[in-house]
Parts: sequence; C-alpha cells; structure tokens
Amino acid sequence: MNLGIDAKPYLLLLRREHNSRLFGKLMSRVVMKFGGTSVGDVERIARVARLVAHERAQGNNIAVVVSAMSGETNRLVEMANAAGAGLAEDQFNDEYDVVVASGEQVTTGLLALALRKIGVPARSWQGWQIPISSSDAHSVARIAAINSPQLNTSIDGGTVAIIPGFQGMTEDERLTTLGRGGSDTSAVAVAAALGAKRCDIYTDVDGVYTTDPRITSKAQRLAQISYEEMLEMASLGAKVLQTRSVELAMAKKVPVRVLSSFLEPGEPNPGTIVCDEEEIVEKQIVSGIAYSRDEAKLSLIGVEDHPGVAAIIFGTLADANINVDMIVQAPSRTEGAVNMTFTMPEREADRAKELMNASKAEIGFQNIIVKKDVSKVSVIGVGMRSHVGVAKIMFEALSKKGINIENISTSEIKISVLIDASYTELAVRALHTAYGLDGE
Amino acid sequence: MNLGIDAKPYLLLLRREHNSRLFGKLMSRVVMKFGGTSVGDVERIARVARLVAHERAQGNNIAVVVSAMSGETNRLVEMANAAGAGLAEDQFNDEYDVVVASGEQVTTGLLALALRKIGVPARSWQGWQIPISSSDAHSVARIAAINSPQLNTSIDGGTVAIIPGFQGMTEDERLTTLGRGGSDTSAVAVAAALGAKRCDIYTDVDGVYTTDPRITSKAQRLAQISYEEMLEMASLGAKVLQTRSVELAMAKKVPVRVLSSFLEPGEPNPGTIVCDEEEIVEKQIVSGIAYSRDEAKLSLIGVEDHPGVAAIIFGTLADANINVDMIVQAPSRTEGAVNMTFTMPEREADRAKELMNASKAEIGFQNIIVKKDVSKVSVIGVGMRSHVGVAKIMFEALSKKGINIENISTSEIKISVLIDASYTELAVRALHTAYGLDGE
Repeated sequence: MNLGIDAKPYLLLLRREHNSRLFGKLMSRVVMKFGGTSVGDVERIARVARLVAHERAQGNNIAVVVSAMSGETNRLVEMANAAGAGLAEDQFNDEYDVVVASGEQVTTGLLALALRKIGVPARSWQGWQIPISSSDAHSVARIAAINSPQLNTSIDGGTVAIIPGFQGMTEDERLTTLGRGGSDTSAVAVAAALGAKRCDIYTDVDGVYTTDPRITSKAQRLAQISYEEMLEMASLGAKVLQTRSVELAMAKKVPVRVLSSFLEPGEPNPGTIVCDEEEIVEKQIVSGIAYSRDEAKLSLIGVEDHPGVAAIIFGTLADANINVDMIVQAPSRTEGAVNMTFTMPEREADRAKELMNASKAEIGFQNIIVKKDVSKVSVIGVGMRSHVGVAKIMFEALSKKGINIENISTSEIKISVLIDASYTELAVRALHTAYGLDGE
Repeated sequence: MNLGIDAKPYLLLLRREHNSRLFGKLMSRVVMKFGGTSVGDVERIARVARLVAHERAQGNNIAVVVSAMSGETNRLVEMANAAGAGLAEDQFNDEYDVVVASGEQVTTGLLALALRKIGVPARSWQGWQIPISSSDAHSVARIAAINSPQLNTSIDGGTVAIIPGFQGMTEDERLTTLGRGGSDTSAVAVAAALGAKRCDIYTDVDGVYTTDPRITSKAQRLAQISYEEMLEMASLGAKVLQTRSVELAMAKKVPVRVLSSFLEPGEPNPGTIVCDEEEIVEKQIVSGIAYSRDEAKLSLIGVEDHPGVAAIIFGTLADANINVDMIVQAPSRTEGAVNMTFTMPEREADRAKELMNASKAEIGFQNIIVKKDVSKVSVIGVGMRSHVGVAKIMFEALSKKGINIENISTSEIKISVLIDASYTELAVRALHTAYGLDGE
C-alpha cells in the first residue's frame, strides 16, 4: 500500500535523535569547505584532516566540501582547451566538465584516506552519487537540488562526508561544473540541504577585513558582517567569497564563517561570521572600504537627447554581455544634447567602444572618450539605511586629500566613487580613517 | 499494460536496421582500445582521434576504451599511498579507487573533444553512467555486467562512445578499479556486451611475435594466434595483452586484434588477430617461443615422504599468495625421503624461504636451496595436441648448445624448461630456429 507519503524524512529524524541520545547531547551538522591552496599537497590535506577531526570532536556531524588541489584545475583546463581548440561552446563544454571535474574527485578520495589514517570514519561522495542536481548549462551550471537523505544518514552515523565542490549532474546524468569559484556555492548549498548550523569556509585569509590589509596595516578583521554588506564587498573586488555563494547563503539563511585554513586545530581562529543583519549585535554605520582597479570609463559626448536613446546604448552593451555600472547623464555644451558616461570592467572597454562606434548613426553622438586608468572606491555599511551624513564624510575626506571624484553611484548600503587610479591607496586609507575603522 | 517483456531490445534492433539502411549496408560495431602511452599527451590523443575517424569511415559504429595518460596512474597511486599510508586494505582500497579512477575520466573527455574537433560526433561515458557493474573487491574488482542499451542506441546513432577502461561501479554505487592492466579487460567486456565484430587493442607493438624481437631479428609477426596460445604467451611474460582480457575474450568468443597505435590512419597496420583455434587457417605446430627471467627455484632436500606433506608445503605458500609453478618431486639420496623443487616469481623467493623455514618442523626436511639466476623458456603451439616429437626437437636443440635443463613442465599446448638465466637468449634463438620460425 502506497500512501503517497515519502516515509524517509521521519526515519531520518528518528535516526538523528537516536544518535544524538547516544552522544548524550544534540548533534549539529557543520559544513567545512577547503579551497585549492588548503589542499594543495598531501601534507596540507593531512592538516585539513586534523581540522576536521577537531571540529568533529566538538560534537558535530561533518560534511566537508573540497576544491581541486591548487594548480590542478588550471592543468586540466589547459589540456581540455588544447584538445578541443576552436570548438563551439555547445560542442565543448560538456566534455570540458568531464575533464575538469576529475580534479575535485581526487581531493575527496585523498582527504577520506587522510581522515581514516587519524582514526576518523570518512567517505567520499561524488556529485552524481548524492546526487547534486544542476542545470545543464555546462561549465557554468547552477545547483538545482541536493538529494540528501542518504548523505544525512551517513553523516549522522558519525561518518564524515567528503563532497567535491564545483560539481553537479544534469537530469540525463551528465557531469557539470559550476564555473570558477563554484566550490563556495557548493558548500553553502550542501549546508542548506543538510540544515547545517554553520558553513565554515576555510581560506587563505583569516576573515573579512574592514579593507585590504595590503593597503593599510590599520585594517581590522570584522567579527560579523551582514550578507548584504558581504555581497557588496564580494562584487567590488574583495575576493574572499564568491558572490553566488553569498546570495545563496542569504536566500537560505545559512550562517557562513570565513576563517584561516593555515592554522593548526586549537589555535585561535574566530574568523568572520557572515549572517543576517538582525543577528549582528553591534552594528557599524560603515563596515568596510572596498576598491576595484579593473575599471574603465566611457563617455559619449553630445548625444542627441531623443526618447529611447539610452535603451539603444545599454541594450547594445547588454546584448554583448558587457556589465555596465555607474551611469551618469549630464547636459552637454551642445543645445538639446547630453553626455552619457558609464563604467565597465577594463577588459571590456575596447569592445564597448567598437560597439558604440558601430551604432553611432543610430545613437547619434559627436564624440567618444575612453579612460582606463580609473578605480572605483566604495564605502559599505547597512548603517547607511538609518544614518544621514555618510556621503558627506566621504566627499570631505577625499576633498581634503585633493582627490577629484569623476563619477558617483549609490545603493541603499553603498556609496561608490570613480577616481583616478593613482589615488586608489590614498583614498582607501583616508576613508578608512574618516569612518573610524582604523585599528591599532 | 505490462506484458513482462522488456521492449527495449526490439526498439534497438529496429533503430539499428534503420541506421544501417541509411548507410546502405549493415553497420558493424567495433571496439578500439588505446593504452596510456597511446594517449600520453594531447598530440597523441589527436592521432588516436584520426585512427577512430578512419575506422568509422569504414562504415563501423565505434566504442573506444581508453587508459589514463601515461604517468598519470602512477602519480595518482603515489598520492593515494601517501595520504593513506599504513591503512589496512579495507580502509584504503575504496577511496584509492576514487582517486585513481579519475585518470581515465580525463582521457575520455579529451578524446571526445579531439574527435569533435575533426567533425566526428562523440561523447564520453563514465563507468557509472553506462553502468559497468563490478564486484566490490576494490582495486582488483571484476566486471560483473555491462548494461548497454543506452550505449547501443548512442553508438548506432553514429556517435562514437568513449569509455574509461579499468573502472566499474559496485551495487551500492561506489567506484571500483579493476587492477593494473584492467583496461584491456574493459575493452573486451565492452566488445562482448555490444556484440562487436572485433576488439582492436592498439598498443606500442604492432602485433604478437613468434618471440621477443629484441632477442632475435628473425622474430616474425603472427597474422593469427589462438586464445589458448595467447594465454600461454601472456602469462609467460609476453606482455602484449593482459591475461584476464584474453580469458574473457575466449569465454565470450570476442575476436581481439593487437595492432600499433603509432601509425597514421591508412598506413598498413594488420596486427595480430587473437581468435578461436578453428578460425585459424594455417595452423603451426609451434607458434612462438616465450621466456621469463623473473623466476626463482626453491628446492627442499630430504623431505620426509609422508602423506600430506605436499599439502602442507603448497598450502602454506598459497595462503601467503605465492604463485608456485613447475613442481618436481624426485627421490632423495636419503632413504624414504624426496627432494621437492618448485619455481616462483623471483620477488617471492625470500619470503617463500622464510615460510618454509618457519614450517620446517611440520614439513620435515634437511636442507633448503634457493636459486635466483634462472629463466623459464617455453615453446607454445596448439599443434602439439596432434603432433608428436615436439618435445624431442626442444631437448635436442638445447642439448646441441650445451644448455642444461633444470626443470621441465608441460601443458597440452606448451613445454617449459627452467635453465640458467645466462643462457636465455641463446636458448630462445636456438628454439626459434629449430621450430622453423625464423623469418628473413
């Protein structure tokens, strides 16, 4: 008799309780993720095993998500590119995924062995074994679902699960990869599927800082940061967490902790918790200063100001997959005309110029100017929502240092300015001080 | 309505006929297998792609079985050994398989890309995608079944299937590997499952020779050899085909062709067909001379000749996984005692001696002699079944050269002698001439 009810969730619940009672307390699930440098050789994998064993000894049931050993993905990508040179994407990407996904598979097996070696029960789970279902957009797939009952049972039995990041499987059982940096997203997705209390992302920095410590030694590690702030930090060039992983964590309310993978277990390693704004006790008006050097500015001078002209300009760029930012429209010297200025990644600037020139007749403009030596510097903080005067502090601080602002854009929790690239460090340091972020 | 009949085979049959009609003739399936050196880098993979394209242009539907790129399996094995050093086999082998199986996966993707690049439709099929079911004896698994309907459909649609050798999947969906050299066995198993007309094993030699061409330039490539002869050749050290693959080919009646992977398509490359004895038109009495240098001889002198003594000796050795060959029992000088002499692989000799000494009281012998500098030279031919005098030619030829025979063993189609290792080449050349195998 089939009641049309999948009985498994109830069984799992019972099993979890059973195990919890055995351990004498409520066991929580924790996901730990280690990137390529953290698992770069067998010695480093052994240290990762010790970190996992330590976390497990705190009374947690563990799933570990791993990247390919550093250098390995590049090696595989190069071979695939050489073997399939000149193929169209739809002829290339599925088999590219087969080649590249092997890198993470190797790490899962090695880490399982390293854990067993120190007496910790462990096994690897490939993307197709769980399975981790994804879209069929090979090489840039998105995780659709993680079917975790089997995994839950294994983890709650005390066996550490080692899962390859970056991988998925399509509906017709072909391997996919999620695109560069996809392992963070895998970890958050696994944490969401397991209902983990935390997703710990071990990386080569020990947390998220108020700004880039290479620019000022006064940068401080943040104890907490909200998802929204982290998203702005990530997309602005603070390369700690992949943007998609933060979006997913925010959507699924998964607390993410960023911490160092280069410490031995037991060493103080608090990291930075990325969580919901409401959970942050001591809110700062401004949490951090981000910057991005890889910017370019394109100005169309004397654009005929007729309806639909912006749609033509930005439609053309969007069709060419060029990501435009910081759009400013200002009156031109020519009567009835305007100047349109916008920024984009520096590597797209020449292509954007060509596209504009190709549509010159249709758009109707007099001149085009591209400037490449520009940086975007941004002030980020959820406190801006409720505090006024944040922008004023920024403009005053920059003005005092004689830094000219070429463009401005704002969001609810961010103010960005475009400046001459040679002033980048000066601007970041001035703002860091002005917002009271300087540490000892 | 379910008639209890799986309709798929009939659909497949229709589809095959349909395709055959499109091509204007009956399409046959051919399996092609390429080892590690043949796919050692991207250039070699491109040549393999040309060979596959050529075979397909002859009107065949193709499945290709590939090994890992040369050096790759060693690299992976070393990492697994380092990560899991000291683990017991049951704690080691499953994850070892996860690590090592990745090597073949890479090759499948690269070859699929290389084929598409020259306009040939192709896709990779991992062991778990087909699936290739195996036993759960991790690292030395045996193929249990290949579920080929999906594969058949794809191949008969004209798409080349690229399959990793050496891999399988257990019932509970864990990866397995078949042990070293398992790719030949994979190829024959795939050929059997597909009902292929031929399994072509591309390797670094252009066929099976009457003897090792490094020993005599008069060695000749055989156009055909029977499964039984090939088995004797393979197990005696002619390392062309893996023994298990020949056994499987014999059991499933799959014709196997050994040929060179270092020629361009279109160059003459007939190779050697390994097939049923009955299909060989011109039967030779002796097909080839094989030899093995890695032999050692152990003699137990003055063994008390009581019932069960042989069982103790060979039981002890079998329990220690030592493969014993060429057993001779002869009267000893001591009244009521015998001398027991047997051979084994040289690397096992010291261990065998220790084992015998440890059981000295139980066995009851006076002395133990180990001789390591010995070779086994064998004459192989199905013609021996019906011809007498084959042994006489052998003994005469060796005697004429002053070569002393230390041991003799025979099977239906083989005579082996143990000789001093320094006479190996001389013996092989003398026998090659004596049996009329010398070419120009």
